[in-house]
Amino acid sequence: MAEPNLQEIHDSLFSLAIRAGAMITSANPHLNPIDTKKNSSDLVTETDKAVEDMVSSSLKSKYPDYTFLGEETSTSGALTPAPTFIVDPIDGTTNFVHAHPYISISMAFAHKLKPLVGIVYNPFTQQLYHAIHGKGAYLTAPSIPTSHPPLPGKGESNVEPVVSAYTRTKLPLKSPAPPLAGLTQALVAVEWGNERSGNNWETKTRTFSSLAGDASTDGGMVHSLRSLGSAALNCCAVARGDLDAYWEGGCWAWDVGAGWVIVEEAGGKVVGGNEGEWEPRVDGRQYLVVRGSEGRKGQEEMIKEFWGKVRGRLEYE
Amino acid sequence: MAEPNLQEIHDSLFSLAIRAGAMITSANPHLNPIDTKKNSSDLVTETDKAVEDMVSSSLKSKYPDYTFLGEETSTSGALTPAPTFIVDPIDGTTNFVHAHPYISISMAFAHKLKPLVGIVYNPFTQQLYHAIHGKGAYLTAPSIPTSHPPLPGKGESNVEPVVSAYTRTKLPLKSPAPPLAGLTQALVAVEWGNERSGNNWETKTRTFSSLAGDASTDGGMVHSLRSLGSAALNCCAVARGDLDAYWEGGCWAWDVGAGWVIVEEAGGKVVGGNEGEWEPRVDGRQYLVVRGSEGRKGQEEMIKEFWGKVRGRLEYE
Repeated sequence: MAEPNLQEIHDSLFSLAIRAGAMITSANPHLNPIDTKKNSSDLVTETDKAVEDMVSSSLKSKYPDYTFLGEETSTSGALTPAPTFIVDPIDGTTNFVHAHPYISISMAFAHKLKPLVGIVYNPFTQQLYHAIHGKGAYLTAPSIPTSHPPLPGKGESNVEPVVSAYTRTKLPLKSPAPPLAGLTQALVAVEWGNERSGNNWETKTRTFSSLAGDASTDGGMVHSLRSLGSAALNCCAVARGDLDAYWEGGCWAWDVGAGWVIVEEAGGKVVGGNEGEWEPRVDGRQYLVVRGSEGRKGQEEMIKEFWGKVRGRLEYE
Repeated sequence: MAEPNLQEIHDSLFSLAIRAGAMITSANPHLNPIDTKKNSSDLVTETDKAVEDMVSSSLKSKYPDYTFLGEETSTSGALTPAPTFIVDPIDGTTNFVHAHPYISISMAFAHKLKPLVGIVYNPFTQQLYHAIHGKGAYLTAPSIPTSHPPLPGKGESNVEPVVSAYTRTKLPLKSPAPPLAGLTQALVAVEWGNERSGNNWETKTRTFSSLAGDASTDGGMVHSLRSLGSAALNCCAVARGDLDAYWEGGCWAWDVGAGWVIVEEAGGKVVGGNEGEWEPRVDGRQYLVVRGSEGRKGQEEMIKEFWGKVRGRLEYE
């Protein structure tokens, strides 16, 4: 088999993301039949399935020799060393169901267990994050408008189309990225997930309090915790530099595969969610993602300090 | 004193929000000196102060008889029955400091303790929420682009300005608003705040787990919890219908005054954060905000079910 052409794969996934985005924004989530999977908080819609169908058909036709690992069709979630497309048709389905516009389509290409191309696209904001291993991470998005919202009755329009310009910006947005200054200066993302009792749930809730609590409880006293609802966009926010860290347990390769490349290409680092796991697997289901900093200043210290606040151990089959 | 002209006040605050927004987007948060107030997670920047200065000077000059209650200059946070402008120059300062673009300027006008005009503006997304008591709530924002992000090298631009059209949409975005179907179907916002030990902290952390936990712990099993970092924008998300509820303890009149009008005009309801507090004060510092639904179907039931999951009691001076 020929060596994969990463630029061509990148361009294919980029174009597919735009097609998928149009399907997502044209769907009415309030009229979208919702199914549940594991429990009442584990949601899937007809749009998730339709987008994955479109993407998998297109990729299987263009790259018949490559494996396809998609959220809605995979049974085990396990990644093999084969050249593999890893796809989450809607990352943030709970947000989508509630019409909260923080969602993305997340698509990665991995080979020999390493993610090499990542595309994450929020079609509601038209922010498209993209990276190829060794070639940097970028955000392509509408330029900031130079006009402003008009007063009612003074220029709003319900009919005129928008003519937009797009800007391509290398990540992180702030360059050089400032040093990481420890938990007390950090904005950290965590997610509640859909496992709501048992060891992993208890580890999560205790760790959230341990991160945010003050010195009287030996807490990390982070600036704050954020729960935004999309693992892929959380990774992109770390790559941008808006978030200092993102700690996760319970998500899957398709939630983080694309974000992983984007984070690493922006100078960030992905390790395991439990102490000492310096070499995590993409399908390992628990992660700590830390942003880049010039000369990686404070990055390893941040990882170790963070691990020291994890109360318990995340464990997945 | 003449009866306040709410439409004129609305238009003045709308225009001030645009001016303030330009100050906020042109500030570089990474170069902005950061002070702390109560503790290391209670942040204020030079931009917060400069925006409040500009807004208060302008309002005091135009409305010399009205009271001004602003986050950076108020000592007690107490609202009186006098005609009062209530202003938070940057709601979401922690996000602003980290360049996470979920922030707003929040400006309300209240009289006889009741908020009557509300303006909440996120200058990074150009989404401006506005409402006048009895006249409905609206979102004025850039129209959804009909174009898409181009592939690298195929049309991105770093120089062309954007010509935008703006759309004015009545809230909630989905009309008629669907019935509220209880906590197990709800997306709920909570915030960690900057009080990180003691009674209110413990009440919060226990309540978060109580809302999200499953039936094995008598939990509410909400779809999920979100922590986005701006009280004003959380209220607007409830008014849009994206969030079903927002529970808060520890914020101030300037965080919720504007959102309060926007929520109520969109059919939502604001009550206290503790059980039985059906008539909360704007400066009461603890709140439960629930979205509208056609005929208010399920609204009172949702409030009572939610209060039943609060573990402890929020108490502020």
